[in-house]
Amino acid sequence: MSNQQLDVIGFGNAIVDVLAKCDDAFLEKFAIPKGGMILIDEARASAIYADMAPGVEVSGGSNANAVAAIASLGGRGGFVGKVAGDALGDIFRHDLRSMGVEYETSALNAGPATGRCLVNVTPDAQRSMATFLGAAGLVTDADVDEDQIARGEISFFEGYLFEQPDARGAFVRACDTARRHGKRTALTLSDASVIERQGAVISDFIGDHIDILLANKAEATALFGSPDLAVIAEKARALAPLTAVTRSEHGSLLIPREGETVEVAARAPDGLEDTTGAGDAYAAGLLLGLARDYDLGRAGALGALAASEVISHFGARPAASLKALATDAGLV
Amino acid sequence: MSNQQLDVIGFGNAIVDVLAKCDDAFLEKFAIPKGGMILIDEARASAIYADMAPGVEVSGGSNANAVAAIASLGGRGGFVGKVAGDALGDIFRHDLRSMGVEYETSALNAGPATGRCLVNVTPDAQRSMATFLGAAGLVTDADVDEDQIARGEISFFEGYLFEQPDARGAFVRACDTARRHGKRTALTLSDASVIERQGAVISDFIGDHIDILLANKAEATALFGSPDLAVIAEKARALAPLTAVTRSEHGSLLIPREGETVEVAARAPDGLEDTTGAGDAYAAGLLLGLARDYDLGRAGALGALAASEVISHFGARPAASLKALATDAGLV
Repeated sequence: MSNQQLDVIGFGNAIVDVLAKCDDAFLEKFAIPKGGMILIDEARASAIYADMAPGVEVSGGSNANAVAAIASLGGRGGFVGKVAGDALGDIFRHDLRSMGVEYETSALNAGPATGRCLVNVTPDAQRSMATFLGAAGLVTDADVDEDQIARGEISFFEGYLFEQPDARGAFVRACDTARRHGKRTALTLSDASVIERQGAVISDFIGDHIDILLANKAEATALFGSPDLAVIAEKARALAPLTAVTRSEHGSLLIPREGETVEVAARAPDGLEDTTGAGDAYAAGLLLGLARDYDLGRAGALGALAASEVISHFGARPAASLKALATDAGLV
Repeated sequence: MSNQQLDVIGFGNAIVDVLAKCDDAFLEKFAIPKGGMILIDEARASAIYADMAPGVEVSGGSNANAVAAIASLGGRGGFVGKVAGDALGDIFRHDLRSMGVEYETSALNAGPATGRCLVNVTPDAQRSMATFLGAAGLVTDADVDEDQIARGEISFFEGYLFEQPDARGAFVRACDTARRHGKRTALTLSDASVIERQGAVISDFIGDHIDILLANKAEATALFGSPDLAVIAEKARALAPLTAVTRSEHGSLLIPREGETVEVAARAPDGLEDTTGAGDAYAAGLLLGLARDYDLGRAGALGALAASEVISHFGARPAASLKALATDAGLV
């Protein structure tokens, strides 16, 4: 067993992305909402894949992307997520471990294959995602390692995975474990559709278990029932000790239960290429800063810096050393 | 069984590329020659991969890249190559079939995994390759389909695969089959190291079985024992009915046994990004032109056009429709 202290432990979907080009007719044919994400079963994944253009495979998963960015920032990250014992699972595991992430969740020996997200990119550069969760959805209590959680400053959960019944139970157990050891918990809402489907259940979960809530403007609007930032801030204070609301190029708001809202400026990227992964990278910087007890402004600025790098190139994981960029910016 | 007529049937290594960044020390540690290609066994592949940075996976294989380019040019391509029945094998098969390539070689049910090429890219943009052939090296006579060969104008072989004993036997059988049906055969030498290792064996094979020989300048120099183009042309005429010698930005020479050498100009790319796959794309255009009985100059120009597209972006397979580009250029 490792006895390394960890800044952030991520709990999320272990997914390999398959990226290919398509036209609008392709999305219509398979009823994939443009710019959105749908969950599909293996049969539908096979049918869509058979019709897809040649692809490129790259490790993905929202929370895993965030943990990769934490490692790139020089942080010590852990990951909990389920792959199958197949080639895509090996690739997913390699790509996290090679960045120094502690990732020990056992592979699934029988059952579905490693999860994959079919990412179809239209000529307007929009990415439309159809996800076959496969093994990823099968995280259970048995994958929650109390010793690891006790070594982590923040346990960070992904809203997408909250929708899997077994995984939700594992989340609750992990949250309880973290708090029992005096550690913090964080949740990203992942997508407005998660809130629409889960409604009060997710609010109750946050109120009971989460210290740090991350949401973009659309997710915050869905959760709090209003696009008005003053209303969002008021309701956020009632729900969670700290809420971060990301607003793309308008920066982010950090709303502590006690104290003033802190506005964090967005950081202009060195050429905007692809916004995929921006929220994950922001979460990485913010949570690493909070794990290391930076003040809110500095932690938010670290998030903005990580996001600006990830949107400057194709792909949702950092291409450059975020630690070097953060050092240059005087943030670490 | 299909009864579609095919322009070119490629016989080559079925390989998935794993691309990652590295520094020079990494290459030294694993004794990978910079800019070169070495064959490795599974144990060494695992050791190198464990130490590699996060990667991107994409279907590769020299001959398969050429067949993909033929499909992109609007040609009818077939491919013969061996994958295992695993996730990487599925990806490799999908990526060819989705371009319209006829690819029916059965997957290996027991034995090694699908082959992979570990491509480590140093900061100077050089690509150094370590290839675990796996299933790819196990093409045998049983994979040679006389009916398919009879439907193809040109059967095209990859020098890399020539080094596998079973595959070499299958090559000879396929060449005999093609010629018995009045069809042509082509071979790319792949790499100068193949010639160094194979020596007279490969010369004899060409003399006995090959109608169209493709080589870059380094390979032609190794094969014919001289860098002098006049010597190369003289010896090429003695060895094969037609030899193409590619010379990067200096264009190519088409040397028919009977008649004058034809010089083909290189085509300037729309921004040079990555020369990987240039030779494969050139072969695709040339062979498609020859399959369709274009004159040498036009067939060579089609090769130059395909190569110019492939070197204008990262990746060894076409990113744009080569047919559209060739139509604009008045070549098809």
